Amino acid sequence: MPARVKAPPPREVKGRRWGPRAAQKGMGSEQVPGTEPSPAAAPHFLQSMREWGGGQASWVPAPLAVGGGARPPCPGGSPRPFGFSQAEVKPEPRLGAGLAPARTGLACAFTPLSPAPRLAFGRERTGSPSRRRRARDGARGPGSRPSLSAPQTAMLPRGCPRALGAAALLLLLLLGFLLFGGDLECARRAWGGAGSFLCALAPRIPQDGRPRGAAALDRDPPTDPGGHNRSDCVLPRPLPPRCELLHVAIVCAGHHTSRDVVTLVKSLLFYRKNPLHLHLVADAVARNILETLFHTWMLPAVRVSFYDADEPQPQVSWIPNKHYSGLYGLMKLVLPGALPPDLARVIVLDTDVTFASDIAELWALFAHFSAPSCPPLPDEQVIGLVENQSDWYLGNLWRNHKPWPALGRGFNTGVILLWLDRLRQAGWEQMWKLTATQELLTLSATSLADQDIFNAVIKGHPALVQPLPCVWNVQLSDHTLAERCYLEAADIKAIHWNSPKKLRVKNKHVEFFRNLYLTFLEHDGNLLRRELFGCPSPRPPEAEQLQQALAQLNEEDACFEFRQQQLTVHRVHITFLPHEPPPPRPHDVTLVAQLSMDRLQMLEALCRHWPGPMSLALYLTDAEAQQFLRFVEASEVLSARQDVAYHVVYREGPLYPINQIRNVALAQALTPYVFLSDIDFLPAYSLYDYLRASIEQLELGSRRKAALVVPAFETLHYQFSFPTSKAELLALLDAGSVYTFRYHEWPRGHAPTDYARWREAQAPYRVQWAVDYEPYVVVPRDCPRYDPRFVGFGWNKVAHIMELDAQEYEFLVLPEAFTIHLPHTPSLDISRFRSSTTYRGCLQALKDEFLQDLSRHYGAAALKYLTALQQPEAP
Amino acid sequence: MPARVKAPPPREVKGRRWGPRAAQKGMGSEQVPGTEPSPAAAPHFLQSMREWGGGQASWVPAPLAVGGGARPPCPGGSPRPFGFSQAEVKPEPRLGAGLAPARTGLACAFTPLSPAPRLAFGRERTGSPSRRRRARDGARGPGSRPSLSAPQTAMLPRGCPRALGAAALLLLLLLGFLLFGGDLECARRAWGGAGSFLCALAPRIPQDGRPRGAAALDRDPPTDPGGHNRSDCVLPRPLPPRCELLHVAIVCAGHHTSRDVVTLVKSLLFYRKNPLHLHLVADAVARNILETLFHTWMLPAVRVSFYDADEPQPQVSWIPNKHYSGLYGLMKLVLPGALPPDLARVIVLDTDVTFASDIAELWALFAHFSAPSCPPLPDEQVIGLVENQSDWYLGNLWRNHKPWPALGRGFNTGVILLWLDRLRQAGWEQMWKLTATQELLTLSATSLADQDIFNAVIKGHPALVQPLPCVWNVQLSDHTLAERCYLEAADIKAIHWNSPKKLRVKNKHVEFFRNLYLTFLEHDGNLLRRELFGCPSPRPPEAEQLQQALAQLNEEDACFEFRQQQLTVHRVHITFLPHEPPPPRPHDVTLVAQLSMDRLQMLEALCRHWPGPMSLALYLTDAEAQQFLRFVEASEVLSARQDVAYHVVYREGPLYPINQIRNVALAQALTPYVFLSDIDFLPAYSLYDYLRASIEQLELGSRRKAALVVPAFETLHYQFSFPTSKAELLALLDAGSVYTFRYHEWPRGHAPTDYARWREAQAPYRVQWAVDYEPYVVVPRDCPRYDPRFVGFGWNKVAHIMELDAQEYEFLVLPEAFTIHLPHTPSLDISRFRSSTTYRGCLQALKDEFLQDLSRHYGAAALKYLTALQQPEAP
Repeated sequence: MPARVKAPPPREVKGRRWGPRAAQKGMGSEQVPGTEPSPAAAPHFLQSMREWGGGQASWVPAPLAVGGGARPPCPGGSPRPFGFSQAEVKPEPRLGAGLAPARTGLACAFTPLSPAPRLAFGRERTGSPSRRRRARDGARGPGSRPSLSAPQTAMLPRGCPRALGAAALLLLLLLGFLLFGGDLECARRAWGGAGSFLCALAPRIPQDGRPRGAAALDRDPPTDPGGHNRSDCVLPRPLPPRCELLHVAIVCAGHHTSRDVVTLVKSLLFYRKNPLHLHLVADAVARNILETLFHTWMLPAVRVSFYDADEPQPQVSWIPNKHYSGLYGLMKLVLPGALPPDLARVIVLDTDVTFASDIAELWALFAHFSAPSCPPLPDEQVIGLVENQSDWYLGNLWRNHKPWPALGRGFNTGVILLWLDRLRQAGWEQMWKLTATQELLTLSATSLADQDIFNAVIKGHPALVQPLPCVWNVQLSDHTLAERCYLEAADIKAIHWNSPKKLRVKNKHVEFFRNLYLTFLEHDGNLLRRELFGCPSPRPPEAEQLQQALAQLNEEDACFEFRQQQLTVHRVHITFLPHEPPPPRPHDVTLVAQLSMDRLQMLEALCRHWPGPMSLALYLTDAEAQQFLRFVEASEVLSARQDVAYHVVYREGPLYPINQIRNVALAQALTPYVFLSDIDFLPAYSLYDYLRASIEQLELGSRRKAALVVPAFETLHYQFSFPTSKAELLALLDAGSVYTFRYHEWPRGHAPTDYARWREAQAPYRVQWAVDYEPYVVVPRDCPRYDPRFVGFGWNKVAHIMELDAQEYEFLVLPEAFTIHLPHTPSLDISRFRSSTTYRGCLQALKDEFLQDLSRHYGAAALKYLTALQQPEAP
Repeated sequence: MPARVKAPPPREVKGRRWGPRAAQKGMGSEQVPGTEPSPAAAPHFLQSMREWGGGQASWVPAPLAVGGGARPPCPGGSPRPFGFSQAEVKPEPRLGAGLAPARTGLACAFTPLSPAPRLAFGRERTGSPSRRRRARDGARGPGSRPSLSAPQTAMLPRGCPRALGAAALLLLLLLGFLLFGGDLECARRAWGGAGSFLCALAPRIPQDGRPRGAAALDRDPPTDPGGHNRSDCVLPRPLPPRCELLHVAIVCAGHHTSRDVVTLVKSLLFYRKNPLHLHLVADAVARNILETLFHTWMLPAVRVSFYDADEPQPQVSWIPNKHYSGLYGLMKLVLPGALPPDLARVIVLDTDVTFASDIAELWALFAHFSAPSCPPLPDEQVIGLVENQSDWYLGNLWRNHKPWPALGRGFNTGVILLWLDRLRQAGWEQMWKLTATQELLTLSATSLADQDIFNAVIKGHPALVQPLPCVWNVQLSDHTLAERCYLEAADIKAIHWNSPKKLRVKNKHVEFFRNLYLTFLEHDGNLLRRELFGCPSPRPPEAEQLQQALAQLNEEDACFEFRQQQLTVHRVHITFLPHEPPPPRPHDVTLVAQLSMDRLQMLEALCRHWPGPMSLALYLTDAEAQQFLRFVEASEVLSARQDVAYHVVYREGPLYPINQIRNVALAQALTPYVFLSDIDFLPAYSLYDYLRASIEQLELGSRRKAALVVPAFETLHYQFSFPTSKAELLALLDAGSVYTFRYHEWPRGHAPTDYARWREAQAPYRVQWAVDYEPYVVVPRDCPRYDPRFVGFGWNKVAHIMELDAQEYEFLVLPEAFTIHLPHTPSLDISRFRSSTTYRGCLQALKDEFLQDLSRHYGAAALKYLTALQQPEAP
């Protein structure tokens, strides 16, 4: 079930370029000498909490909080209490019917008996510290005496036999509380089959006022609720209702970050079992790349929305920022305004995060945010964050290190649970702008972008934050203390490469984390097209058509593989590497070609021969794409070129979809003209200039529809001194070092070019199409596409030239142009199929179908092709 | 922390060969026309259960069952009651300290107050059906009235404050029971921090006498406890104690099955968080392959033990079996005897199973087996199984289909929880042999191997079985009903390709399952070398040394990549494809070479030129290995050859470890002599015969230590008519179609062969070593290995020839032998590094070190090499 993706057709990108790593995101990096932490520097949360309304904080029973916020916060109160947007009140969109009860269904299942729906353990935050400690210790020490003080209110299932049910529920909840010191919310929605059983630890701000994460870092007894599989505390995993749509927001800009997003998304998809809605706040470059990618990825139960990152920029552009993420690094501050107003909650991720667990478990932690109260408090919990896992904010990393203010070690903003509508209600925009303005009076700039400002706001409003278990953001910065978290946890949920060194960061366990990252970096993204069984989602029309077409194929058909390959939609990652679009010039030409791994060696030579723009499509696996990346980075010649656009078409299926790949390269060419070449040809050194001059002279754009023919030659020698002029070429030809292309094996492919005439020609001359003619030509960018039915090898270029002729392109041979084919090992795809009779039979069928389509399309004008082809055929 | 692997050095395999898929395992396959199920045909479990001791079945409270069986079953009773082996009484081995309490710790925490430790809900199995129904309905319908009948006994923590603790525990347990109708065992080990909280559904045999799985298949309300993330019943996942060692047994035989085992193990490793002990019951072929693989894989916290599958064969060989798994298919019956007597519990897996979840969750289901009773009953639960997900055992699939007897749909044995010592105690061997003998009086043979016999035994002794949730064995047989399971479950735990068609099985959702399978098939196994943070395990000495050596490398060193690559231990999968070892012949020669993906095209031609045995090592990624497999399967020439052994060396690191790969191929050659060739050479058609004749004539084995030189030539033409004799070759040489090898670029590499003399030679002649000599030679199999320090390109063969010379091998040129190099594109690795000055500098450093080692080893005799090399060096 491919996802519904908002994807307009790929378009030209002529705007801003983000240089290597310039726009790389990944908050909270610290490139500083490390010192040991000073635990004394951690302030007390509790005090701040009381100041900011902790005394009024109220708890509703856990069952109501489960799944979060889809019921009116004030039972019997005003229908639209402030602090709740429309989106929060109405049930969130769900894909599929499922068995899940709508959250609103809970309202009828549970009705408070008392007008003040507070359970005894709701007072954890308001009760005396000693009482709280006692309760908590009850879950830890054998000597505890859990108090049986009765709850002051009770809730009962309506319409159920109350006598026993109520007592049972109450006792269970009470015992859960006693045993776990208030940390365990055991919610039961079982009656009538309409409920769910959820047990979850809510990390609360403990008595010492420091977040749990901090406790873990300072070697307190581990309290991580996420770490299952532990002897001391094997706890069930909390999960949101089945099929609940989860929202994820990511800010991304530039080519590098776009690649990072793909790896992050792969790790999300690998573990997810819920429908996802990705909200991508992207610049033009990232949007162009990711729209194409998601459109072609056709992921079931994944929706993608794009938001223009440049639009809200003025809101943060006044903030001086020293962090490498630049302006986009600050963008997370404006998400409540930038994302749709009816989006109530969202998980915000840095692009350098990798998941090792189902994100639904993280989403479920929203259920632990303090519930809205009546009347609403100014500081409800609105932001879920993991503690920063370094001593940066303690301010003692080096002399004169003056970090932004933070609570203790502060929080890291690589992974955020953002309760958007509460934030909007709380006046978030005003709040952070005020804080930032105040701090910037004494601090010159942010060092860690948005993270500094988030921390400064939280320092002033500590009750806003819900601390999350450390395993949800294991930070691999240069001087990380994360080890204290993950060595105990055994179940790491998400890692965060928040060092500017990324995978090269020094760390005792970096191999482990690298392996986890590489798992997804190199994971075949096609395999993530798995549907969600439990959550049916409607398919977009194109995916539906595709499925139907695939279903109609007959597996017994000898050409089944061909048919299937033709229908395959390949994932496409355009401009995989940084690319600067060429400036608009009326006669400019882009060299267009496609290749796979076994032709990478050609790239450097090609760059030397063609100084102009190129659009190259590479047919690769995800793992090969990484090899390709390293190859380019290791090459001075290649990494110096910003005018070569590399587009990755991901491998799928047994046959080489040569024309589909060519079409990707062709579609991404940004100049008015294209030179349709093949990767194993090197053009004459002067060809780029000569072509532009010829286009201008021939007035192609206005005067006529023409295909300029570049005569093709070949050499059989690996060591070959490339001719620098037509005269040198002719000398080599006479010497037998160079032949006209395929002179020995397939002369008719280029015979119509009329090499004899070319020897003498001084001016362009027109030639006529003939059967099997397949010259290399220069045509306007809007020329016909290659016919994608030709997969594997054979007739793929011949059919294209035939179509040009059918559309009445003139073939004009250029007298000074030439290109030379270099020898290479026959590709695996060729050798695998060349000898197969089935293959040849299928190719014939494809040809016949192509000719039928040609007749249908061009009518009588196409007759000449049928006639010509009825003559005896060459192999 | 690489695992401790019992791995002797690779040895010759001369025994039985398992043809393509002949020994492929995977129980329970059914290749039959499907009909709709007849629910009426399902018999009632309960009745059988009563007959077989259901009335005496007893329950101990769940806390005691958690973690399973490590405390004496009879408190205060006899110290060694029957039904418990030593291994069960002593705590299981644990890797690492962890925080987990030893299971024996529970014995002191809980002491029964009453001499008859039975809780009220222990009577689920003995109580009246109506009562049980009521209890169960309590968890489902709003109209239920859970009975509060008090427990008749109680257990209390000793040494803890009893007054409240006991009541709390009791109420919690009771409520859990009431709410979940006896399905939920909520066990709490919280006092003193020494406990764990586990909530788990124990699938019990319900009132209608049919296992839960059956209910799921027949569209009863879903009761799957494994399926989390469900609205109707979100249940916590049960997990065994942290760092508990999990035991897995797999029967495997032959080449294909060995590959399948790797995919299965990868899926296990991907999700696991516990140490694993793999017990592989293997034939000689599988053992040879898998010992090498695991030895080189160096997996942290994985122990592997091998058991000879041929030894217990006579115990099952009397059973006629029609299933494609053959004799090995029956082997699961004898596991209690074949596995070590102190192994108490094990998960048994078919090789065609793929995990999609942490196997620890499956292991945790042992906790739900009925606890041992005092006195022991004849039929304690000993086998955990998932229901068979087809109508096979209902016997109505086609006319005259007479399946073996089974309870209802029966059980599938692709995934088994086997409580070994209880089985041994229960007289398992006698039991199944008796049953099989009886059934074979009327049935001619087993159709589904061991599964038929397991089912027949269970039909007679239904209380033996603990039904497991259907998601732990989603069966993808031809006429599977599995959809009824997984469409509801949303969380599939393990899939089972139990159709003989395997991935080609017809199934609406087969794409989903294929993707899951391909995920692991193509997953880079190197990435699974991740350590377990929570569970430290001691490293074997070689892994420890490796770690230390790697730690000593300086990342700033310009040659760091070289050093690291040299130290890399590559995973090796020998005889990746079916291979028949050559019969022992005293003068036989194996062609030895290595290649990567870009040279696959050479294989067919090589097979035509060399009719003898070959040992070829391929440097591939896991994904490429699958491409290679398809390539061979698609080639008639290649798939016809059983005397070509292909060994996969898995890619890791940036440099090509050419000599390590060559050494793998060399070590696996099984003939007395080897022809050390390169993949881009084609030998003279007659070379194989000529070499054997020459070896015999020259009496190499006894008379002298010699390296027979095969003169090397090259052609630059792809289309090349290979000379069939020395005369033809000389004609081509004179015509300039063929040159002596590297005549233009590097003549000194082969100049000492003395081509001028060879032209005229009628008999073998001796030549002297000279600098940079690198001929292709035939040597005894026990010749020196290639020096693995030479990674990348350069000096790798030169050094080997120098070592042969240092060991006083004579170089004898054979007058009629020749081999010809074919042209090819320069490999990516060459072109990447050839131009790099760093690369050349590092290569020089390697050379110097090699020469130092040579001097150290051969003393004065090595002086000549130093002297010779001091002359001006060629590039």
